[in-house]
Amino acid sequence: MALTFDVIGTAVKKRDGAEKVTGRTCYLHDVALPRLAHGKILRSRYPHARLVRIDTSRARTLPGVLAVLTGDDVDTQPFGFAKDQRALKRGKVRCIRDEVAAVAAETPTIAEEAAALIDVEYEPLPAVFDPFRALEAGAPLVHEELATNAHPLRYQFSHGDVDRALAEAAAVVEDTYRLSFVTQACLGTMVAIADWDLAGNLTMWTTTQVPFLYQRDLGETLGIGGERVRVLQPPVGGNFGRGLDIYPIDVIAALLARRVHRPVKIEFDRVEEFVACPGREPCLIRLRTAAARDGRLLAREAHVTIDNGAYTSWGSTTPYVMLSTVAGLYRVPNVRFDTTIVYTNNPYSGSMRGYGNPESTFAVESQMDDLADRLGLDRLELRRRNASKPGDVNPQGFVLTSFAMTECIDAAAEAIRRDAPPLRPGWARGVGYAGMFHVGGGARIYRSDGCGAIVKLDDFGRVALLTGASEIGQGSETVLAMIVAETLGVPLERIDVVNSDTSVRPWDVGTHASRTTFVAGNAARLAAEKVRAQLLAMAAAQFDEPVANLDVRGGWVFVKREPQRRLAYEAVARSGHFKGGGRVLVAEAFYDPPTAMLDKDLQGNVSAAYASAFQAALVDVEPETGKIEVRLIASAHDVGRALNPPAAEGQVHGGIHMGLGYALSERLVVEEGQIVTQSFMDYAVLKADDMPDIVVRLVESVDAEGPFGAKGLGESGVIPVAAAVANAVKDAIGVRFTELPITPARVRAALAGRSAAKDGR
Amino acid sequence: MALTFDVIGTAVKKRDGAEKVTGRTCYLHDVALPRLAHGKILRSRYPHARLVRIDTSRARTLPGVLAVLTGDDVDTQPFGFAKDQRALKRGKVRCIRDEVAAVAAETPTIAEEAAALIDVEYEPLPAVFDPFRALEAGAPLVHEELATNAHPLRYQFSHGDVDRALAEAAAVVEDTYRLSFVTQACLGTMVAIADWDLAGNLTMWTTTQVPFLYQRDLGETLGIGGERVRVLQPPVGGNFGRGLDIYPIDVIAALLARRVHRPVKIEFDRVEEFVACPGREPCLIRLRTAAARDGRLLAREAHVTIDNGAYTSWGSTTPYVMLSTVAGLYRVPNVRFDTTIVYTNNPYSGSMRGYGNPESTFAVESQMDDLADRLGLDRLELRRRNASKPGDVNPQGFVLTSFAMTECIDAAAEAIRRDAPPLRPGWARGVGYAGMFHVGGGARIYRSDGCGAIVKLDDFGRVALLTGASEIGQGSETVLAMIVAETLGVPLERIDVVNSDTSVRPWDVGTHASRTTFVAGNAARLAAEKVRAQLLAMAAAQFDEPVANLDVRGGWVFVKREPQRRLAYEAVARSGHFKGGGRVLVAEAFYDPPTAMLDKDLQGNVSAAYASAFQAALVDVEPETGKIEVRLIASAHDVGRALNPPAAEGQVHGGIHMGLGYALSERLVVEEGQIVTQSFMDYAVLKADDMPDIVVRLVESVDAEGPFGAKGLGESGVIPVAAAVANAVKDAIGVRFTELPITPARVRAALAGRSAAKDGR
Repeated sequence: MALTFDVIGTAVKKRDGAEKVTGRTCYLHDVALPRLAHGKILRSRYPHARLVRIDTSRARTLPGVLAVLTGDDVDTQPFGFAKDQRALKRGKVRCIRDEVAAVAAETPTIAEEAAALIDVEYEPLPAVFDPFRALEAGAPLVHEELATNAHPLRYQFSHGDVDRALAEAAAVVEDTYRLSFVTQACLGTMVAIADWDLAGNLTMWTTTQVPFLYQRDLGETLGIGGERVRVLQPPVGGNFGRGLDIYPIDVIAALLARRVHRPVKIEFDRVEEFVACPGREPCLIRLRTAAARDGRLLAREAHVTIDNGAYTSWGSTTPYVMLSTVAGLYRVPNVRFDTTIVYTNNPYSGSMRGYGNPESTFAVESQMDDLADRLGLDRLELRRRNASKPGDVNPQGFVLTSFAMTECIDAAAEAIRRDAPPLRPGWARGVGYAGMFHVGGGARIYRSDGCGAIVKLDDFGRVALLTGASEIGQGSETVLAMIVAETLGVPLERIDVVNSDTSVRPWDVGTHASRTTFVAGNAARLAAEKVRAQLLAMAAAQFDEPVANLDVRGGWVFVKREPQRRLAYEAVARSGHFKGGGRVLVAEAFYDPPTAMLDKDLQGNVSAAYASAFQAALVDVEPETGKIEVRLIASAHDVGRALNPPAAEGQVHGGIHMGLGYALSERLVVEEGQIVTQSFMDYAVLKADDMPDIVVRLVESVDAEGPFGAKGLGESGVIPVAAAVANAVKDAIGVRFTELPITPARVRAALAGRSAAKDGR
Repeated sequence: MALTFDVIGTAVKKRDGAEKVTGRTCYLHDVALPRLAHGKILRSRYPHARLVRIDTSRARTLPGVLAVLTGDDVDTQPFGFAKDQRALKRGKVRCIRDEVAAVAAETPTIAEEAAALIDVEYEPLPAVFDPFRALEAGAPLVHEELATNAHPLRYQFSHGDVDRALAEAAAVVEDTYRLSFVTQACLGTMVAIADWDLAGNLTMWTTTQVPFLYQRDLGETLGIGGERVRVLQPPVGGNFGRGLDIYPIDVIAALLARRVHRPVKIEFDRVEEFVACPGREPCLIRLRTAAARDGRLLAREAHVTIDNGAYTSWGSTTPYVMLSTVAGLYRVPNVRFDTTIVYTNNPYSGSMRGYGNPESTFAVESQMDDLADRLGLDRLELRRRNASKPGDVNPQGFVLTSFAMTECIDAAAEAIRRDAPPLRPGWARGVGYAGMFHVGGGARIYRSDGCGAIVKLDDFGRVALLTGASEIGQGSETVLAMIVAETLGVPLERIDVVNSDTSVRPWDVGTHASRTTFVAGNAARLAAEKVRAQLLAMAAAQFDEPVANLDVRGGWVFVKREPQRRLAYEAVARSGHFKGGGRVLVAEAFYDPPTAMLDKDLQGNVSAAYASAFQAALVDVEPETGKIEVRLIASAHDVGRALNPPAAEGQVHGGIHMGLGYALSERLVVEEGQIVTQSFMDYAVLKADDMPDIVVRLVESVDAEGPFGAKGLGESGVIPVAAAVANAVKDAIGVRFTELPITPARVRAALAGRSAAKDGR
C-alpha cells in the first residue's frame, strides 16, 4: 500500500449529489416504459377477519381496468423469513396491511377507483395486539395451523456463569425498556415495476437493496427459477434497510404484469408507505447488568420480547444484533440472552438501519449510567474501565482486531466540552453518553458474505467498475470509485460505477450491516489491482523496462527513477490494444471476508472487523413544558480509515438525525392493529432546523483487512443516539426514561408523577 | 472441439423474434425519458447556396420552444472520414441535406413548427451534380478551399502485367456499368437521443452499429474526450450499414441537449430518412476482363468513378471492397484498379450492406457471362475453371484457407434445376449465374479488428455474455448465445446477451464486414472456455476427481466414465461460491484475428477467412410489357459451418430481398441535387409477394479459425443478386443491361432500341 494517497482521504463530492439536488435524478418513480400499466393493492379493512366473499365484478367492468386479481386467482408460493405469508391473502386476513386484491389499469387513478369498487365481505374475528396477551390461553390465533402464537424463532445464548456473577456483584441494575414502531420514512416510497418477456423472463425495477437474494426469493415465490429474474435498481429516495426483503408489492406487480402481458408499476402513496413499509420492530427488553465495586462489568442478562406482527420479515431476526451488543458493548464476561417472539394481528416489521442495535444500545447504555450512579463512579470512567481493546475475543467469539473504543470515548468527551450556548432560564441541562458496538467488516448472516467486482479500462481511459454492491443513497458509488481510482492511479472522474443490473453485476449479498465499503471496497480494490498489473505489464513492453521499475499515478505510467519517462495510462492501454495479439483491460475479483456464520449457540466471528463509536449529547430540558432541545452531539467513530471524510461525516449526521427522531419524536402509532399515522404531519421526522450542532470525530485505527484500512460506518451514527439523549435527560432532570420517544408529554407526565410521589411521600 | 454438438447446428429461433413480431420490442423510437425534449433539424432548400442570413427570432418566441441553434451558435470540430463537414453548416450549404438550424422544443410538433418559422435567406450558387462535369475547368467548387472538386481519396492497385495480358488474351470484354443511389430503407428511421449529466458526461441512445468508434468520433466532434461519451443501442428497425458513421443528427442532438440541459430526441420521419440517411454510393465502373481461349482469366482492369456528394462518409471508401472483387472473384493473375472520386452538390453516401461489392460483382459477373459468350464456353464451366481454391493467395495477398467456391457453384447449379413453374405464353425465360467473394473472418480496416467478451455465470446458472458486438437485427445475439451455450455445455435459454451499453461492454470495432459471428463469436467462445475451466476446477474439488475426468454438457457436470455421478452445473457454481475462499465465475477474453491492414499498395491479408457464394436466378421476362419476374433464386454459400441454419438462411433471404430491389426496382431519385423520392410509394422495396422462391444451400467448409468452423455471412446474400438477375435477363431476351435497376421501362426501351436497330439494318 502506498504511504500517501491521491484520492483516499480527500473530500470528494457524492457523485449522485448534483443530479439529486437539481432534481435531475431519474428515480424509480420516474421510470416510464412503453405500454406501462398501473397497479393498485386493496388492503384489509380489519386486522383479523375471515374473507367471506370478494366481488370484483364492478371493478372489472370499469373502463381502463385490465385485470383484477385475488388470492384465489393466483398460484404463488409462501415467502418471507418464515415462509408464512402469500402476496394475496386467502381465507382470512391477519393484519390491516393484508393484501386482499389487486388491480391493473391504464392509469393509477383508474386502478385506485377500481380498487374502491371491489366489494369485500369480511367476518371480523377477535384479534390480539399485545405479545403477552397473545401468549395467554384462549388468545385468538393468528395462524391457526401453528396452534399457538408463539413464534418458532428463538435466540438463546449463554456464556460464563451469569447466576454466580449476579450473586457476587457489588451492584446489579435491572429494568425493562419498551421500544415501539418506527418507520424508515423514506422520501421515496416503495415501487415495483414488473415486465415479463415472451420467454417467461421477468425484469423487476425495485427498491430492493439485496438484488441477488431478491432474485432468488421472488423466483421461488412465483414458481420460476431465480435465473429468470433480472433485477434493476434505479436510484431510490432512501431505503435504510427497507429493501432487505421481498414484499407483496413485488410479487403482486409480477402477477399483474404476467396477467396483463404488459409492464405494471405499483407505487405506494405516503399513506400506503406508512401502512405497508415494514419498519423497526416493537419490542420489550428486560435487562440486568451486574458490576463489581470498581465498575468492572460482571454479567448481563437480557430477555427480549418481540411483537412479530402477523407475518415474519427481518424484524424478528434483530435479536442477532441485540445480542451482539448485550454481549459485546464493553467487556462482559458472563452473558445470558433469550427471546420471546410472538405473532399478533399487528403489522410486521422489517429491517431498519441499526437492526436491533439502537434498541439494545438504549437498554445497555441506560444501565451503564445507572450502574455508575449506583457505584458512585464517573460515567466516562466506568466506560473506560470496561472498554474492549484490540485483541479481545468477546463472549460470542468475535475477534476484535482494530478497535478504538477508548479513543472514541476520549474524542467524544473532549468534543462535547466545546462552547455551548448559554442555558436559558427555566431550562435544565444535561450531558449524556453512549457508546456502540457493531459489525464493521461485513456480517456473515448468509453462507456467502462476499461481493464480486469487474473492472474494465477502455481505450479512452474510462474505467467501469461493475460491482455487486447496491447504491441506496449511502455514497457507495463515490467511495468505490475512489478505491478504484486510488488503486489504479488514474483520475477519479474517469471511473464509472455500474451497480444496478443483476444481468451484468457479479454476486453480492446486499447492502446491509454497514458492509459495502469494506466488502465491495475490497473486491473493487482486488479487481483494480489486477487491471493495474495488466497495465504495467503492457507498459513494461512499451518502455522496455521491468514492471518493478514502473508505477502509475495521477493518470501517468512512469519509470520510477526517471519520472519524466512517462505515458498517459490510456495511451498505454491503446498501444497494448492496437497491436498484434492486442487485448483490452478487464479483470474480476471476488472478496469474501474471512469470517464464520454464527453457530447454533450463536457463537462465531461473523465480521472481519468491528466498529465502535462513542457519542455525547448536550441536552436542555424545559421542565414546565417538557420540551427537550438537543444542543450538541459529539460523535466519535472508529472508521478504520476515513476514505472520504465528508461522506463519512454525512453518514454520521444522517444517523444522528434518525436517532434523534427515534429518541424524541418519531412514532408510528398503531392502535388496535390500525395504523393511525397518515402523513408527515403525524410522523415527526426532525426538520433541518430541529437539528443540533454536530461534531464528528473520525478515529482512524487503520484496519488490516479493510480497504485502505477502512471499516463500515453506515449504521454507527444512529445506534447510540437514543441512549445518549436519554442519559442526558436523566442528567438534566433526574428522570430515567425507559421508553421511546421521550416526548414533552412524557417528560411532563414523568415530572408530574415524581412531584406527585414527592408530595405523597 | 467436440465431435457432436448440442446447440451448434440446430435450428434456434431468433431470440428477439417473438418480441418483435408481437410488437413488444422497445425500439429506440419508443425510448421515453423524464423531461425529454424533442429536436428538429432545418435543412437547406438549395443544393448549393450562400447562407446570407438566418433569422431565428420567430422560432425562438414560439411557446414550447426551448432553443434554436445555427452554425454560428455552436463550436464543434469537423467530422467524417475526410473531416469535411460540421453538424450545423456555416457560410454556405453544399447539398440539400445540409443542416442549417436546429430546434429543441417540448413536443415534436412544436419543434417542427418552429423549424418552419426560421427564416433563411439564401443566395443560390451554381451547382454541379455530375462527377465528370465537376472535374471540368470552371465547374462550381463544392469546397473552395480545395481549389478542385477532385477528392484526395484515390485507390490504386496494380499486380502483374495487365497490358501484356490484354495484348495476349484470346478475348477481352469491356463495358461501363452505372450504379445509382439506393438507400437502406430501414423500417426504423434514424434516431439520436442525447443526455448530459452535470459532470459533463454525455449519454447517447443511437442507431449506430460501431459504438466505440462513435464514442471516439462524437467526443472529438464535440470537443470532449471519448471517455465522456456513453453509447446505448436499443433495438433498431434495420441498419444495413447505416450506423457505421456519426452524422449531424448525433452531433445536433448532443448540442441541443447541452443547450437546454435536458435530454433531447431527434427522430427522422420517412421523408427525412430518404433525404438524410447516407445510402449506397452512385458510381460508374469501367471494367475490362481478358481471358485465354480455354476461358482462363488473364487480367482485369477497372476504373471506378464515384460521385462523392458534398461531404465524405464511408461511401467513397467502398473501392477497398470493389477492388477485392475485381482482384479476387475467381483467379485473376493480373489486375489494375484505379478510382476517381469527385465532390458534387449531391447528397453523400455511406455504408450499405455489401459495401461496394454488389456494384463490382455486377460488373465482374456480367463480364464473366460476356466472356463465355465470346469464347463459346459454358457459363458455369468458365466459372469452374477459374474458381479460386483453398491455398490460393490472391493478387492482394489474401490467403484463402477454407474456400468452397467450386462446391457452391455445383450446389447452386443443381438447385436451380428444380421444378420451375411453366412458362407463360408471351414470356421468355433465362437462367443467370453469379458468384461472390467477400471477407468472412473479419476485415482489418482499423488497427484493431478485435472484440472483447466477458462471461459471468451466476448462482442461478444464468450466464451473461457481455459482448462488444452490436445486434442490429442480424441475429448475433442468438448465435453468440449458442456459442456460449455449446462451449459451456449449458442450456441455451440460460444465456443472456448484454450488448447495448459501452459502459459495460468490452471494445469492438463494430458490426460491419460480416464479422460478428467470426470475431465476436471467437471472443465469446474463448471467454466461455475460461469459465468452463473454472467450473470444472470447482467440480473437481467437489467430485474429488481430476479435471480431466470431468465433462459438462446439457447443464450437467459429470464424471466421464461414470455419467451417473453428476451435478447440475449451477449447483457446482453455488457450492464453489458458498465456501471458504469461495468465488463467482467470471472470465474475459479478447479475440483479434491474425490479419493485417492493407498497406499503401492495397496489399495485405485483411481477413482471417474468406467467404464465397454462388447464385443462380431463374427469371421470366415479358417482352411486351418489359416486366421481369424472378421465379427462383438458388443461393449456395460457403458458411464454414452453419451455426444456426435457419438464421443463416434468413440472412441469405434478406440479402436476396435487398439484392432484388437493387436489381429491379429500388432507386433513390436524385435530380438536380434534390431527392425526389418521398415515400415507399416511390421507393419500391419488394413486398413479400414480390419475392421468388428461394433455395439456400449452406456449404460447410469448416474453417480452422472460425468459431466451430463458421465464417461470416451477413452480406453474401445481397452481393451477387443483381449480377445473376442481369445475366438471366440477358439469357432470356439477349439484352445486356449495364445499369440498375432493370425496370420494365428500361427493358421495353432496350427491346425497342434493338428492334429499331434491327429494322434499320
